[in-house]
Amino acid sequence: MKNTSAWEEKAKLLRKWSLVSTTAAGSGHPTSCLSAADLTAVLFDKYFTYDVSNPLNIYNDRFVLSKGHAAPLLYALFGMCNAYDLNELKTLRKLNSRFEGHPVPKYKYAEAATGSLGQGLSVGAGLALAAKRENLPFTTYVLCGDGELAEGQVWEAANFASYHRLNNLITILDINRLAQSGETMFGHHMNEYEQRFRAFNFRVFTIDGHNYEQIDQAFEQAHSHAGQQPVAIIARTEKGKGVSFIENKDGWHGKALKEDELKKALDELGPVNDNARFDLRKPATTTLAGDNPPVNTTIKLDFDNAKSYATREVFGEALAQLIPHTPNMYVLDADVKNSTFTEDALKVTPERFIECFIAEQNMVSVGAGLSRIGKIPIVATFGAFFMRAADQIRMARISEANIKFVGSHVGVSIGEDGPSQMALEDIAFFGALPDTVVLQPCEAVSTASLIPQMVKHNGIVYMRTLRPKTKLLYKPGEEFKIGGSKIVRQSNDDLLTVAATGITVYEALQAADLLKQENINIRVVDCYSVSPVDRDTLLDCLNSTRMKCIVSVEDHFAHGGLGDFITAAVSGEGDYVEKMAVTKISQSGKQEELLKDAGIDSSSIVAKVKQLVKSYESVHAHA
Amino acid sequence: MKNTSAWEEKAKLLRKWSLVSTTAAGSGHPTSCLSAADLTAVLFDKYFTYDVSNPLNIYNDRFVLSKGHAAPLLYALFGMCNAYDLNELKTLRKLNSRFEGHPVPKYKYAEAATGSLGQGLSVGAGLALAAKRENLPFTTYVLCGDGELAEGQVWEAANFASYHRLNNLITILDINRLAQSGETMFGHHMNEYEQRFRAFNFRVFTIDGHNYEQIDQAFEQAHSHAGQQPVAIIARTEKGKGVSFIENKDGWHGKALKEDELKKALDELGPVNDNARFDLRKPATTTLAGDNPPVNTTIKLDFDNAKSYATREVFGEALAQLIPHTPNMYVLDADVKNSTFTEDALKVTPERFIECFIAEQNMVSVGAGLSRIGKIPIVATFGAFFMRAADQIRMARISEANIKFVGSHVGVSIGEDGPSQMALEDIAFFGALPDTVVLQPCEAVSTASLIPQMVKHNGIVYMRTLRPKTKLLYKPGEEFKIGGSKIVRQSNDDLLTVAATGITVYEALQAADLLKQENINIRVVDCYSVSPVDRDTLLDCLNSTRMKCIVSVEDHFAHGGLGDFITAAVSGEGDYVEKMAVTKISQSGKQEELLKDAGIDSSSIVAKVKQLVKSYESVHAHA
Repeated sequence: MKNTSAWEEKAKLLRKWSLVSTTAAGSGHPTSCLSAADLTAVLFDKYFTYDVSNPLNIYNDRFVLSKGHAAPLLYALFGMCNAYDLNELKTLRKLNSRFEGHPVPKYKYAEAATGSLGQGLSVGAGLALAAKRENLPFTTYVLCGDGELAEGQVWEAANFASYHRLNNLITILDINRLAQSGETMFGHHMNEYEQRFRAFNFRVFTIDGHNYEQIDQAFEQAHSHAGQQPVAIIARTEKGKGVSFIENKDGWHGKALKEDELKKALDELGPVNDNARFDLRKPATTTLAGDNPPVNTTIKLDFDNAKSYATREVFGEALAQLIPHTPNMYVLDADVKNSTFTEDALKVTPERFIECFIAEQNMVSVGAGLSRIGKIPIVATFGAFFMRAADQIRMARISEANIKFVGSHVGVSIGEDGPSQMALEDIAFFGALPDTVVLQPCEAVSTASLIPQMVKHNGIVYMRTLRPKTKLLYKPGEEFKIGGSKIVRQSNDDLLTVAATGITVYEALQAADLLKQENINIRVVDCYSVSPVDRDTLLDCLNSTRMKCIVSVEDHFAHGGLGDFITAAVSGEGDYVEKMAVTKISQSGKQEELLKDAGIDSSSIVAKVKQLVKSYESVHAHA
Repeated sequence: MKNTSAWEEKAKLLRKWSLVSTTAAGSGHPTSCLSAADLTAVLFDKYFTYDVSNPLNIYNDRFVLSKGHAAPLLYALFGMCNAYDLNELKTLRKLNSRFEGHPVPKYKYAEAATGSLGQGLSVGAGLALAAKRENLPFTTYVLCGDGELAEGQVWEAANFASYHRLNNLITILDINRLAQSGETMFGHHMNEYEQRFRAFNFRVFTIDGHNYEQIDQAFEQAHSHAGQQPVAIIARTEKGKGVSFIENKDGWHGKALKEDELKKALDELGPVNDNARFDLRKPATTTLAGDNPPVNTTIKLDFDNAKSYATREVFGEALAQLIPHTPNMYVLDADVKNSTFTEDALKVTPERFIECFIAEQNMVSVGAGLSRIGKIPIVATFGAFFMRAADQIRMARISEANIKFVGSHVGVSIGEDGPSQMALEDIAFFGALPDTVVLQPCEAVSTASLIPQMVKHNGIVYMRTLRPKTKLLYKPGEEFKIGGSKIVRQSNDDLLTVAATGITVYEALQAADLLKQENINIRVVDCYSVSPVDRDTLLDCLNSTRMKCIVSVEDHFAHGGLGDFITAAVSGEGDYVEKMAVTKISQSGKQEELLKDAGIDSSSIVAKVKQLVKSYESVHAHA
């Protein structure tokens, strides 16, 4: 209670900088900052424990700004913690400033890139879960807007938080009534939020978000950690609070004040103490999230030459070998652990297995939270269902998260379950994100070799695994690497090259056998690294085959797949790449039937090669 | 009450065919069918109004199978309505059968393709909303599993249904406790579901899903339409109900019985009346959803040559002209109507404007529901945020839905808001889906011309619109078409072609001006149709320019964009396509700064062209 005037002073300075920085930028969301200024002033002044010189200290409390458009408030908050000079906020939204329109990783105090709404509670849940599992004493705070509560992911996260008993997670809901283009679904009907969060088993405190005593009391009670429930502080606020002509007014979302309006607003705010600062308590201990134990890369799997293995099974076995000796690894499942074979990891290290149930969006953003605190999350589901979390994956990439995605059941080769379960656009999506690695080994030996490398690689890796079992192609000890490939068939007189990946490697080999009977020799390359693709080997194949032609064959849609990666890699070298891929929606059927139906089976490859040879010969007969 | 034994008989036949068909297929989810057999037997026997000879009759009740893996139950239900011979179910999951592993459009009685979970309630809400808005008297029933209730989209749909007062929507929750890889989050704790659906303002009935009297009573009360709330019938069921050795047993998800197990199961079921059938009431009126009024294609927009226009604004104006005269059009917004300019449509036809708030997943699946009933939904948000609904768009494509997606704020050219708001992987994703059309006009005249064509086109179209204003390039009356392009700069002595789309058309034109000063002539093509791309024109450009080279320039990531479409189109023609695109995560800044930073501005194009010319000349000097 005694702090009320100090809080008012500090909130006023937060307001000032939210207004000043956005006016300097000429754009931004000042009104969305003003509604949360009082809430965050109390939080930072009295409760938040943090070492600003070590944002990666794993003992720091965490503040996740889910409503990312209130970035200027975030920047003002840490500026008032002496993390940097507040005057630097005048570079807001300018090229090369760390103060971007929405938080990104070059701003070291952001727990995640936000700006696509409704993801912060999941990120916070990931942080809180890590704390819970590893007995780290920090508290995670998530500031959410009301508009974003319409996103289903928030309710996935709410279920997750209460199921996992995250009583170290406090979400602050800034219910300012107004969204971008009008009133939110529920306006200021606070009961609508209360009843939902109660139903999702949160401990709920409903307050006036501009009443310092109520705010303080709510945080005080939230920290009592009574019971095992996560906390929601539901705060009724006014958008634009503190400046009469924008307060609770429609039409002011995402608008900076003009210079004259700013002057008027600052006049209204009245005298401000520009030296008001938060004097944060530091955690007693310092361990940086970057100080990771090394990844165990020595796994030993023996395969029987007479047997076939599904690469998804091999993934599970490799995981089970790696995880006990790689303490930062976590495995996340969306209720398909018996299909992706992450259940193998559950058996050996249940303490680092996270069941996310059928909620892929939350799973991915929980992974982003874990990554922030130095963990290596292995996120696995059917490849098709990563599309459910495409936006979260996009944001994880912007966050520079270190996540490994493993998608099983890719392509038409899954068979009878039909098109809803087939990943056929996954390479296009993952491959479009800059610097992501896309792998698709076709058999056991290469899979076992690539998995430790995938875990070790810093950044986003996507691995496609296969549902059907496949024969061994390689011997123990052969080397595989990100960016590599293997020539699995060649002669001294190859006409052209077939570049395949995953299941189509076998179709290509079978096609090579059939073509050989007709005295047509082809080279076959296993492009287990789809991106980066092995440019050197492919160029060499182009130049050392008679027709200087590569035929790519893949169990993926034609646009955005392996074929496009190869074309881009060899472009400008007098190349000719012919793409074979899936060009229609598939159906139910047997694996071989569907490969044939899609035109990517051995007989289709034979026909394509013969057609290319014929047209080559007709041209060169005249030469 | 009197029907109990008849219901039991019919449920038994549903169970028999669920078991028989999956055993014949050798795969499938019989236990997931058995838990819902009693619920659906009562529904179809007493409540469901439907004309099986006209599945597209807009007066039919609707049955959406959200838990798509229970497809055999759906197939048995309509078989028992004499829609086809039940023996045809033995073709389940076989190539070219209409009875796929999960429902797809070739099965005419499916309201949508399902199989990616948690989408059915949204599809049903779309159907129910159309009924509500157009006074159609049908009821929409949605059968959901319990596992899929973890998907956030379900809660987006629940908010949507209660907000829009869809008291004509009845969702039946089959709470059978067991998901794929274990127990669901809540098992048989019925209160967890009750409290959530109550909190989301549903009228809730909790029943024993195998007690016919309770089922009947729940439907009876649900149909009273008391109040304006949607209904949730929460039914406690047993997975595998009716067969002791699979009933409520873990490890039986997605497993067909072996022949001997089937025999044992059928013995347990006891005598079955194979002639039991549902005698459905038909609706009194028949109007087929396919009987659509024509699309108005004559819009008239005048543009002032001296002014600039953002294509997103032109989209809004065109929409406002089209919609009053095209009665099947609906417009869906996710709280960005003042940015996408769908607010223009809201002003003229509020009765066909649907505010979905910030919940893109539900918005897309509501669109799929509307499409099923013959509507043409225009679904608009920021291009980046369509990634939030990528899985729903994927399923809409499998459903053969007729949806127009309009994504604004594409590329780095949006400026200060930063990477979270930039669509840069959207072409890769939409373009991968077979037969989707991707358009990106760069200015007002072409936008106005393409919008009616987009609306008229049957199938999925994605249009990218620009945030910044751009100058007019075309005169009124010029023709634009899906699959077309425009040469906007050419000479008799062009060295190469720059193919641009959207904002980069202006960069390419500026580059052409700069290069001309150095006596380098280039051709510039506006690829406003990204897919299909204008192969003929591009081939002609290749062959009539000296260097036979195309440089593609786009405000999109390098993989999966325009460049890959062009490369695929001209492949094999001695072509050489050089891609210029965004290759890193962008940042905040001014439009021109960010285009330059991404290497896709006029100066970057000039540098690239000069480099290509230099290397061409060095090769040809020696020739």
